Amino acid sequence: MIERLAQDARIAYRQLAETTPAKKTQALKAVAQAIRMDTKKIIAANAHDMDAGRKAGMSKAMLDRLELNEKRVAAMARSIDDIAKLPDPVGRKLASFKRPNGLVIERISVPLGVIGIIYESRPNVTADAGTLCLKSGNAVILRCGSDSFHSSSAIAVCMQKGLKSAGLPLAAIQLVPSTERALVGEMLTATGLIDVIIPRGGKSLTERVRRESRVPTLLHLDGNCHTYIHAKADPKMALKVLLNAKMRRTGICGATETLLIDKAALSLLPKIADALIAEGCELRGDAAARKMDRRIKPATDEDWVTEYLDAILAIKTVGGVKEAIAHINRYGSHHTEAIITRDKKAAAQFLKEVDSAIVLHNASTQFADGGEFGFGAEIGISTGRLHARGPVGVEQLTTYKYVVKGNGQIRPK
Amino acid sequence: MIERLAQDARIAYRQLAETTPAKKTQALKAVAQAIRMDTKKIIAANAHDMDAGRKAGMSKAMLDRLELNEKRVAAMARSIDDIAKLPDPVGRKLASFKRPNGLVIERISVPLGVIGIIYESRPNVTADAGTLCLKSGNAVILRCGSDSFHSSSAIAVCMQKGLKSAGLPLAAIQLVPSTERALVGEMLTATGLIDVIIPRGGKSLTERVRRESRVPTLLHLDGNCHTYIHAKADPKMALKVLLNAKMRRTGICGATETLLIDKAALSLLPKIADALIAEGCELRGDAAARKMDRRIKPATDEDWVTEYLDAILAIKTVGGVKEAIAHINRYGSHHTEAIITRDKKAAAQFLKEVDSAIVLHNASTQFADGGEFGFGAEIGISTGRLHARGPVGVEQLTTYKYVVKGNGQIRPK
Repeated sequence: MIERLAQDARIAYRQLAETTPAKKTQALKAVAQAIRMDTKKIIAANAHDMDAGRKAGMSKAMLDRLELNEKRVAAMARSIDDIAKLPDPVGRKLASFKRPNGLVIERISVPLGVIGIIYESRPNVTADAGTLCLKSGNAVILRCGSDSFHSSSAIAVCMQKGLKSAGLPLAAIQLVPSTERALVGEMLTATGLIDVIIPRGGKSLTERVRRESRVPTLLHLDGNCHTYIHAKADPKMALKVLLNAKMRRTGICGATETLLIDKAALSLLPKIADALIAEGCELRGDAAARKMDRRIKPATDEDWVTEYLDAILAIKTVGGVKEAIAHINRYGSHHTEAIITRDKKAAAQFLKEVDSAIVLHNASTQFADGGEFGFGAEIGISTGRLHARGPVGVEQLTTYKYVVKGNGQIRPK
Repeated sequence: MIERLAQDARIAYRQLAETTPAKKTQALKAVAQAIRMDTKKIIAANAHDMDAGRKAGMSKAMLDRLELNEKRVAAMARSIDDIAKLPDPVGRKLASFKRPNGLVIERISVPLGVIGIIYESRPNVTADAGTLCLKSGNAVILRCGSDSFHSSSAIAVCMQKGLKSAGLPLAAIQLVPSTERALVGEMLTATGLIDVIIPRGGKSLTERVRRESRVPTLLHLDGNCHTYIHAKADPKMALKVLLNAKMRRTGICGATETLLIDKAALSLLPKIADALIAEGCELRGDAAARKMDRRIKPATDEDWVTEYLDAILAIKTVGGVKEAIAHINRYGSHHTEAIITRDKKAAAQFLKEVDSAIVLHNASTQFADGGEFGFGAEIGISTGRLHARGPVGVEQLTTYKYVVKGNGQIRPK
């Protein structure tokens, strides 16, 4: 089945290459409109999924991810309108140079090709991923989890309506019409048919993709993020930023999981602990931190590598910026890290030597987000090193080609 | 063994992050100087490899690839001096934007990390790959073929001298000190230890890497390149450019393998055949081509997908630019293709819709080369779509990170 879908997708992708940005915009607006018109149908389909989820004993957090209501459907449509308004990411001149022999070489952005997206329970990924791929001229094969199959199918119908109304090929956005597990394996081995695989989901999905995929991937592994309070941090700013970085939302990948606190800033710890405990956060620290505040439980080495995605904070004391950098590069997941300091030199060293996709000075790690970066919606945060690091928006869903213009140049022997 | 090498490489890579561009330049110049000083030793080591090659019955073409003489060693050193002179590819500001909340976000180029390069008989890859990686701030593990082990080891000694004289870590460039085959497998599964694998060699090596690698790769697959002579081609230019594209060097990946000739340009074929046959090229064509010139042998479908790397040219007649594009996108390898025409509209369509890393108008496909693009030396030509397409030079050996500067911003709920 995947082979057939992928062949149709490839034809659609070639047809998209011949279309105009205006057509894509028209289709995207029509998708948003169709979602608004079909709000009731989408919510009804979602009710099926929610029922099945409740019967299967799905956790409250999972049910919350799965749920669609009028507000969420409206937000989905609005997000598509925003994507429609973004500048077209295809055909940008990324570089241009003239060679001594007169050849003019241009590096031009082009779509990646046929993208396979494998995701789990959030049905809004169907709309986000489908429309981000269309905006960037890619054809996409969406493979949703069985949990959200009814919801995703209802959303996919709206995308088909949008494509049709703009005269674009329906195979530009296809939802795999089955949740059979073996189909994921087929996608991961579809070399030459699917150009890029992007998983969106929990650790077990990402690990499976990393292990099995023969197709190049853009991976989003875990976000074990750090905030480092330097000796010369502004105490008020440190408290405010850390509180936001940890507690604004604990379940997102940009949430801080470990606080690195400078020995020279340890006196700030009791106040920080007060604020975090008041918000229901559990604290686990090393000996020096626990000496400052006995409400802090003992941490083990396991805590330094754990992405809690929960109201738990690990606290490690460090002797300076060099030690903070070494800890992050050793135990972190190369996602997002922040330093809080008034010392510009320490900040510069941290920003340069911390080897993560996003490094921040005096700001919350929760800014690790395509929307906050101004990219519009995002398909994920890449923790890989090739192609894209950090938020993957429409620009990151393109690659480039070289266009070379001559007047009969030949290469000397 | 690979684990130990990779751990040392990672430490070296962190140390390189703290060094200056000037130190890297100093080391590179010292490597070139050491190669010049050691010319005799390198040629003597190469003589061992050549002897073994002859005894093993290596082909003439393979022996030619393996051979080092004074001229080639001098060229190797010169190439390193050229790499030393390139602008530093690390720390470039690729983008910069200010958000409404005052955050300033910069996209800054950084090294890829620890790179593993697996190559075959050309010993000069040792010098090129080692120094390109150093220039771009990466640590590299070089795994040469057993054919060139003595030559590569002698070159590696010179790289160690260069690193030492500039005070840079010796583990920044390591040659795997064994040619045991199992070590390639160890490299391909060194997830988390090696960041990127780049194979340089024949099809069987590349296919093995594609199949087995758990580490992200930059692949150079085959170059089944096309030259399309359009109805409105300048006849003289068409002849001159095609002859160069096919015959300048037949063994490189940018050599044209298939001529697409427009029905309306078929009358040019006898003269083209004269010139190619005079240079010893075998011609294989479809019925329409053979009708024009009986010296052309019949082609089969196999010919459309074959990278000959030899003095053989497949000839396919097409009914226009649309058919030429469709043939290339179906049978080609997405490497390099050229159109010869005076018709700007046809050229624009070809350049836009041919889905290859490099597309040329009125120029030879043999320009598919990092040096010809002005990148200095190259590590290969990527036919993948992620990260780098076309020549992989020092810029393509970098990735980026986001550096975000704030003054206490927190993300709203």
